[in-house]
Amino acid sequence: MTSAWDHPTYDVVGIGNALVDVLTHESEDFIDRHGLVKGSMTLVDTERAEELYAAMGAGIEMSGGSAANTISGIASFGGRAAYIGRVHDDQLGAVFAHDLRATGVDFRAKPATEGPPTGRCLIVVTPDAQRTMNTYLGSSEYFGPEHVDADLIADAQVTFLEGYLFDRPEAKEAYWKASRVAHEAGRRVALTLSDTFCVERHRGEWRELVREQVDILFANEHEALSLYEVDTFEEALAAARDDVEIAIITRGPAGSVVARGDEVAAIDAHPVEVVDTTGAGDLYAAGFLYGFTQGRSMAECGQLGSIAASAVLGHTGARPGVSLGQLVRPMGY
Amino acid sequence: MTSAWDHPTYDVVGIGNALVDVLTHESEDFIDRHGLVKGSMTLVDTERAEELYAAMGAGIEMSGGSAANTISGIASFGGRAAYIGRVHDDQLGAVFAHDLRATGVDFRAKPATEGPPTGRCLIVVTPDAQRTMNTYLGSSEYFGPEHVDADLIADAQVTFLEGYLFDRPEAKEAYWKASRVAHEAGRRVALTLSDTFCVERHRGEWRELVREQVDILFANEHEALSLYEVDTFEEALAAARDDVEIAIITRGPAGSVVARGDEVAAIDAHPVEVVDTTGAGDLYAAGFLYGFTQGRSMAECGQLGSIAASAVLGHTGARPGVSLGQLVRPMGY
Repeated sequence: MTSAWDHPTYDVVGIGNALVDVLTHESEDFIDRHGLVKGSMTLVDTERAEELYAAMGAGIEMSGGSAANTISGIASFGGRAAYIGRVHDDQLGAVFAHDLRATGVDFRAKPATEGPPTGRCLIVVTPDAQRTMNTYLGSSEYFGPEHVDADLIADAQVTFLEGYLFDRPEAKEAYWKASRVAHEAGRRVALTLSDTFCVERHRGEWRELVREQVDILFANEHEALSLYEVDTFEEALAAARDDVEIAIITRGPAGSVVARGDEVAAIDAHPVEVVDTTGAGDLYAAGFLYGFTQGRSMAECGQLGSIAASAVLGHTGARPGVSLGQLVRPMGY
Repeated sequence: MTSAWDHPTYDVVGIGNALVDVLTHESEDFIDRHGLVKGSMTLVDTERAEELYAAMGAGIEMSGGSAANTISGIASFGGRAAYIGRVHDDQLGAVFAHDLRATGVDFRAKPATEGPPTGRCLIVVTPDAQRTMNTYLGSSEYFGPEHVDADLIADAQVTFLEGYLFDRPEAKEAYWKASRVAHEAGRRVALTLSDTFCVERHRGEWRELVREQVDILFANEHEALSLYEVDTFEEALAAARDDVEIAIITRGPAGSVVARGDEVAAIDAHPVEVVDTTGAGDLYAAGFLYGFTQGRSMAECGQLGSIAASAVLGHTGARPGVSLGQLVRPMGY
């Protein structure tokens, strides 16, 4: 793969649903009573969002969105990062934009002045630290190919796509467009599968995108088994290695496995007392991609991923409260 | 003091600035660079609020407002609580209302549909755990006597007033009106002085309100010395005891002193590793007033105050993430 420019301005540009998280801690009973599927992400309409919000306890609000969390993490490491996503011109949209820019992320997209408000994700954290997400997409629902900033993508080493957005036809079209722009400029495309339900809803189209456009694939074990409809971790890893340049499969507390060509590295999870799993996968991708764009080995990239994930597992919320750059510098990164 | 009704519906109704907090952790350098006065609350206009927000790092948003924190704390103990304050009909106003109601607080006031947006408090937490607050009042700026819900006040054992609101003439008038309504119904009036600058700006009017209307006075040591323009804790306590039925002076990690008639109790601070002092005074008042409305002794009220304060000192933000009722039940309350 060759580079159109020797020195792209950005290490990584991310594309995803621009959301503000609303987090509360609830009992197991809350999950049952409201018919939620623990650990998953469910799209909800306005009515259901209002019903769930009314039932939830007092919360905290934090900027979220899977790819936005990843991009914010890369900037927190000191990486040069940009984000593409759609907020509305409202208070939560302003919070979302502020928090990305405050971390050093280039977020240029003008907020929408028509249509629904900025999207939000109602996150219920149970005593087992698992998070269950109910996403009201709001302005993100209307993301399409016209929002793909081709100049930005051509000027980034890696374009990172979150699986959650790959749902409506216009959003799928946007991902194909972004991938083609990236490859025409000699860049790489990274993708995270995000959620087993996302994979199940669009398995055929995912397989096609992964095979034809994805260079770096992130999946957790369940998502990888579902994508390839296989029964074992080994089969899933082998299938992913056939499709992509770099395959990364995460296994929660059991760590992760990274494969690039003949190089396979197994990485331990970074030790932490888990309070809330929200954002752990997003931050793993942040650490990995930061390492990758710095030219690190696969094992080092995986370790940076584990460290970044641990920085959000120990507290409530999907973004680290500390500078990841300052965190890893004493560890020799 | 006699009661107009034997069983008022509410234990406590609070009145204050309805604000959403925006919290970030920043270095000491940030305080100097932006000319902030550490530990204090400063009112800021739109321009200054935007300038500070742009300079602040990524934050978390949580419902705040001093009296609202206290009232939310009382409800969290299991007390019957109501709140009077002014939000706008916007996203942050909806968050503020949701979080109060989710804790069980009766918040009836209709949001404003004209004028400025819901107010917010930009809170900078430094590594010494001290919080520095910059308040953009927004819709709270136009709080006046017409917003005092006389029925609600007459139907609560205690009306709790925060000092921060006592600034504009209309708000002062509202406090006098609320106090008179409470006393005519045979209820008590509690007041917290909130901030040394608040005391200095309006010392004469504070002294008059305290002497004529306040039954229960909360102040920290600095505020009490400033109110009475004395040099020692003992003089301040003596002056407060002359003015009010119950005087409570808090001393941070040195605990608090509570005086009622001849009864004086010194209470230790509840041990906790302090992360962020935001809301500690508000929650002390919550514990105290919950105990008071349950008929507890002065020492027990002070202990409940210390425990409630410790529940927010150990984390970022002004409201506890746990049920205060569940927290104190094993302690025999």
